Amino acid sequence: MKKNVEPVYYGEYLQLDKLLSAQKPESIKYGPEAHDETLFIIVHQVYELWFKQVLHELSSVIDVFAQESVNDSALTQVVHRLNRIVTIQKLLNDQIGVMETMTPQDFLAFRDYLVPASGFQSIQFKMLEMGLGLKSQFRIDFDKQSFFNRLNDEDRQFLQEFEQKQSLFELVDKWLARMPFLEFEDFKFWQLYQTATNEMLQSDHDIITNNATLSDDEKRIELDSLEQTRASFSSLFDDNIYSKLQQQDQVRLSRQAMLSALFIKQYSEEPIFNLAHQFIECLTSIDENLTIWRYRHAMMVQRMLGSKIGTGGSSGHEYLKRTTESNRIFKDFFNMATFLLPKSALPKLPESVSQRLGFYLTH
Amino acid sequence: MKKNVEPVYYGEYLQLDKLLSAQKPESIKYGPEAHDETLFIIVHQVYELWFKQVLHELSSVIDVFAQESVNDSALTQVVHRLNRIVTIQKLLNDQIGVMETMTPQDFLAFRDYLVPASGFQSIQFKMLEMGLGLKSQFRIDFDKQSFFNRLNDEDRQFLQEFEQKQSLFELVDKWLARMPFLEFEDFKFWQLYQTATNEMLQSDHDIITNNATLSDDEKRIELDSLEQTRASFSSLFDDNIYSKLQQQDQVRLSRQAMLSALFIKQYSEEPIFNLAHQFIECLTSIDENLTIWRYRHAMMVQRMLGSKIGTGGSSGHEYLKRTTESNRIFKDFFNMATFLLPKSALPKLPESVSQRLGFYLTH
Amino acid sequence: MKKNVEPVYYGEYLQLDKLLSAQKPESIKYGPEAHDETLFIIVHQVYELWFKQVLHELSSVIDVFAQESVNDSALTQVVHRLNRIVTIQKLLNDQIGVMETMTPQDFLAFRDYLVPASGFQSIQFKMLEMGLGLKSQFRIDFDKQSFFNRLNDEDRQFLQEFEQKQSLFELVDKWLARMPFLEFEDFKFWQLYQTATNEMLQSDHDIITNNATLSDDEKRIELDSLEQTRASFSSLFDDNIYSKLQQQDQVRLSRQAMLSALFIKQYSEEPIFNLAHQFIECLTSIDENLTIWRYRHAMMVQRMLGSKIGTGGSSGHEYLKRTTESNRIFKDFFNMATFLLPKSALPKLPESVSQRLGFYLTH
Amino acid sequence: MKKNVEPVYYGEYLQLDKLLSAQKPESIKYGPEAHDETLFIIVHQVYELWFKQVLHELSSVIDVFAQESVNDSALTQVVHRLNRIVTIQKLLNDQIGVMETMTPQDFLAFRDYLVPASGFQSIQFKMLEMGLGLKSQFRIDFDKQSFFNRLNDEDRQFLQEFEQKQSLFELVDKWLARMPFLEFEDFKFWQLYQTATNEMLQSDHDIITNNATLSDDEKRIELDSLEQTRASFSSLFDDNIYSKLQQQDQVRLSRQAMLSALFIKQYSEEPIFNLAHQFIECLTSIDENLTIWRYRHAMMVQRMLGSKIGTGGSSGHEYLKRTTESNRIFKDFFNMATFLLPKSALPKLPESVSQRLGFYLTH
Repeated sequence: MKKNVEPVYYGEYLQLDKLLSAQKPESIKYGPEAHDETLFIIVHQVYELWFKQVLHELSSVIDVFAQESVNDSALTQVVHRLNRIVTIQKLLNDQIGVMETMTPQDFLAFRDYLVPASGFQSIQFKMLEMGLGLKSQFRIDFDKQSFFNRLNDEDRQFLQEFEQKQSLFELVDKWLARMPFLEFEDFKFWQLYQTATNEMLQSDHDIITNNATLSDDEKRIELDSLEQTRASFSSLFDDNIYSKLQQQDQVRLSRQAMLSALFIKQYSEEPIFNLAHQFIECLTSIDENLTIWRYRHAMMVQRMLGSKIGTGGSSGHEYLKRTTESNRIFKDFFNMATFLLPKSALPKLPESVSQRLGFYLTH
Repeated sequence: MKKNVEPVYYGEYLQLDKLLSAQKPESIKYGPEAHDETLFIIVHQVYELWFKQVLHELSSVIDVFAQESVNDSALTQVVHRLNRIVTIQKLLNDQIGVMETMTPQDFLAFRDYLVPASGFQSIQFKMLEMGLGLKSQFRIDFDKQSFFNRLNDEDRQFLQEFEQKQSLFELVDKWLARMPFLEFEDFKFWQLYQTATNEMLQSDHDIITNNATLSDDEKRIELDSLEQTRASFSSLFDDNIYSKLQQQDQVRLSRQAMLSALFIKQYSEEPIFNLAHQFIECLTSIDENLTIWRYRHAMMVQRMLGSKIGTGGSSGHEYLKRTTESNRIFKDFFNMATFLLPKSALPKLPESVSQRLGFYLTH
Repeated sequence: MKKNVEPVYYGEYLQLDKLLSAQKPESIKYGPEAHDETLFIIVHQVYELWFKQVLHELSSVIDVFAQESVNDSALTQVVHRLNRIVTIQKLLNDQIGVMETMTPQDFLAFRDYLVPASGFQSIQFKMLEMGLGLKSQFRIDFDKQSFFNRLNDEDRQFLQEFEQKQSLFELVDKWLARMPFLEFEDFKFWQLYQTATNEMLQSDHDIITNNATLSDDEKRIELDSLEQTRASFSSLFDDNIYSKLQQQDQVRLSRQAMLSALFIKQYSEEPIFNLAHQFIECLTSIDENLTIWRYRHAMMVQRMLGSKIGTGGSSGHEYLKRTTESNRIFKDFFNMATFLLPKSALPKLPESVSQRLGFYLTH
Repeated sequence: MKKNVEPVYYGEYLQLDKLLSAQKPESIKYGPEAHDETLFIIVHQVYELWFKQVLHELSSVIDVFAQESVNDSALTQVVHRLNRIVTIQKLLNDQIGVMETMTPQDFLAFRDYLVPASGFQSIQFKMLEMGLGLKSQFRIDFDKQSFFNRLNDEDRQFLQEFEQKQSLFELVDKWLARMPFLEFEDFKFWQLYQTATNEMLQSDHDIITNNATLSDDEKRIELDSLEQTRASFSSLFDDNIYSKLQQQDQVRLSRQAMLSALFIKQYSEEPIFNLAHQFIECLTSIDENLTIWRYRHAMMVQRMLGSKIGTGGSSGHEYLKRTTESNRIFKDFFNMATFLLPKSALPKLPESVSQRLGFYLTH
């Protein structure tokens, strides 16, 4: 084999001629070059290269879940690749610190020449959001409008088609919903579960009422939120209530998927669930890092522009802050702790159940 | 001198007997030890040790600004120490990742034994917030109430006295307000400044209206926010308007201080302002890192508890998220970019002015 | 249960009275307090707290491997806890940046008062090194001597006893050596393996000789190192050669353990090996981070002291640099890539083999 | 002005068509694509983009020091830009963690197709090393040879010309040497300095001999190294001895430059030296981060290849480790602490001196 390998040269392999000739400051067109415009360009180009890598991993993961079944071997690889995305995201978040070495005035020296370009026009970032599961329907109004407006026809069309594809969120929802968690005739998990949760809620109720350090107002607030918790618990077992919560975008997963994920988290230390649990944790971390990135990015923009409008003609940071929370994709995994019981309160998993699940997860 | 030095032993110098015997899990009292409770204890103890260090630096900085005047030499040291705080904060933020290695269920195994203890009871963290300038009046209602309620009498009394002291924010405000920036008879900076800003706002107006990618709605939104920007500009030169904004907590600095800070940022590259500018940047970074910490902390709590109530009897993360923004202390520095002009639009600083300022800053 | 829980107060739970009263600068005894001595104390105290946490995890892992057998469920937990250690180590490494905010002169202001205290006297750090597997026999001479000299009798005695216990390295070596990897009558893995390696070495030989960019000297150097590689390969299958390498401390694992680890790494994507492989990777990362810590620490000491002697009376950084490499514990895992074959060259794992290994790993 | 600005589109501004079409895995040519080759390509491309940014800052700094004189205003900007390089370097070091998510076997799947490409062929990295001051004469033999061999004619010629330019090290050496530190008739700094150092060395001598915890061997070792320290001190004041040390590459700065740097570090808290000191610290940090990068990179290569040869036909990590220390550029700044006195031992700086230096530094 080695005989036929053509010799490779570092610079050609990496196509450095294209890569390193792709920084053309606009400021040069209108006067002396603004020194920091190169930083501005390269920071964004590095982001785009990382986005390409993240999309490379994401699409390979989506391909796996597009299959009829996902076996252990595939899941091992999926977890490995999602962990890589998490590692890359840490860099993306720290990279904001590099942009922050640019002062507002250094930015003002070329900002006006970039109108109306805007980070909202990053196709890859939108592919990332969509691929994970943030489709238009989940976006806040302002975002929904501006989402496609700012793009040229080619990009808009491309993204509109891309949005038709199944997202990782949708595929994971189906994968979880397919799990046979609710059919164990003799193992009455969910009854036991409901009994245990009622005890837990009662004890939380006692904690609040017996807490001398809380004012009456505070107690009322806490008891109200406790009632909401009780309500969301009951929703888990009532299709009608649950679908109402879905319509209010309080939950996104299907009820079946929610229960499966809950089951996996409850028994995460069972070897049989080890990979499935790692997988859920990865998705949560990816969402968390994306949220941290949005938040730090919004603050950086505020520090750079105050309430000045951005190059895209929108006063960036206010808008960006609004999306930080609303664009959370796997928020159900974040809130799942609400429904978790202490190990001590868990019914032991019967061998028969492990076996059925084992079969599902490994074949 | 060296003759009389008593020999020192590592473990005694660091008082490791006290330090390493101070981890007593509550879970042991009620059953088998919860393995992860030690992590929970040590993570919080490390935070408290760093808080002590940060307070050590902060109080030395406060002492400097409590003086009649702050010379270059003192300011050099202040900047060095604030940069140390920033370095420590990066650790504090990353440390959340260590806590996140604890699963919700590992936490549930001992959470109930910690009632009603709560991070709200960290005296040092409140000293840090107060020392920087976050006094009760700036806190949101819920926070205002719970602020002292949860503490025992001794701690409450201590903090109430501590709150009487001048905060760094108050001292910096006075220091800035003292600067003789508005008295330069012949140098008409602020007139020139107003002319320049009007041009800038006009061009922003054009950017928006000429932006084909914006819908009419979006344009309206942007033009409104531009009007707000115009309003805040004019407020800089009208005591009545400005004090209204202060009452609405839109700005916290006094008008004089705001103008001085603005002047320093405008001319930050003048060597004479180098240290003063570094100082302002440090304060902004400290505030930014504190905000990031609050945000990541809130998300970690959500991941750990969902909407379960915390040990202190309050559903943590919702509340914590509310404070993330509202507890910003030096937010005026964050928004200052709103008022900055490009260097090209700046009037050259006359020698006479540099000299007066130089005298103020170095003596 | 909740009824009987005694209320807990944050400050008492964390024993902050002890913790925050444990910083007593020596400089005060001899003159005005050296401001930065507090930083010096707290940085070291934080290190000791983290060391306690790491030892808490490490000893729980050692307990698992002290058992007759290690099942999947236990291994899941072990990997989780080792990953926590890795997360903590990242903090420990970044924390050096905090110490580096102290200038050499700030340190000189109190260094002389700390004589002859020294970081070499950290019992917990030595417990960590010993617990992982760095016992005296593996230390370089200077280190071997100073190892116990600097300690007081109590500490010395404690560590000498501690060193008698089995280290994680020793336990892991036995656990790997126990694996039934060499007994598969019909599955001739190691023969196939040797054939494949010979091909690989031959092709490496061609790569070197055909490389026009290498000078003859360089080629000679590379071909020599290739011969060494060939030698180490053959050592894997010859007890005499292998034990020679062990005596020269070129390898530390037993031959059986080495072969098992190699097998696991070769087939790491087989679900059955997933956990075992994660476990090996964790140990490698822990060793890597410890090495990075030693290296950065040595450089920090150089920046602080140059070639001045440290408080312990030894010129720190030269010595520290010498230990950086020699104190690597799981270096065999680092070098294992030497022996790995591309997946394409691997014989497919027969079902019967997976089953036997599966049985070993899960029961 | 704004009137004439041509509208800019995000993707065109960043030339994403070129950037995102520049990843062509070699593995495709010979069989199925190796999934991780894209990671390998993008990680290296991101490095090259950052290198371009670092070179952008570095060359602007070199331009400043190529001038007759460097005033405060220029130095302010230089420090700002060097700090940016330090911030970027932290990313470059953490980025190694991304590469480490690739397993040795994932790498083996395409390694053979990249022969004989090698990171040694990165022109920008060599420009960075040369620009800072690491010219061929300072490289170890192996490196000296391979330095140009591996390059094609065009690149070799380019670098050979580039190497003729003055490096930052050379320019900084001259800048420091020009400082009028040794001509203060009445201010006998260097005499006072020598008296003080003798006292310090004597007290170090006592510390060692009085240290009960040291064995006689250890004491001898320490006393020898103390003698070396004494020798290096005296070298500062003897041209012949000093130039011997230079020939042995024990020191790189000229004696005049060394003394100036020492003076600045001694009086770093004098406002007049604030910027010059920050500048020296930046250069030290850049060198430190470069060293950490080399060290982590070497360890990553070991983990990936063991003692297998790299694609360039050289067994990477052994060689890389050898360069980690030898390629330090500003090592004199690292060792400078050797020569520092405690503030208490420093003669007060006379006003006349500050003024002369002030004049030199600000004009």
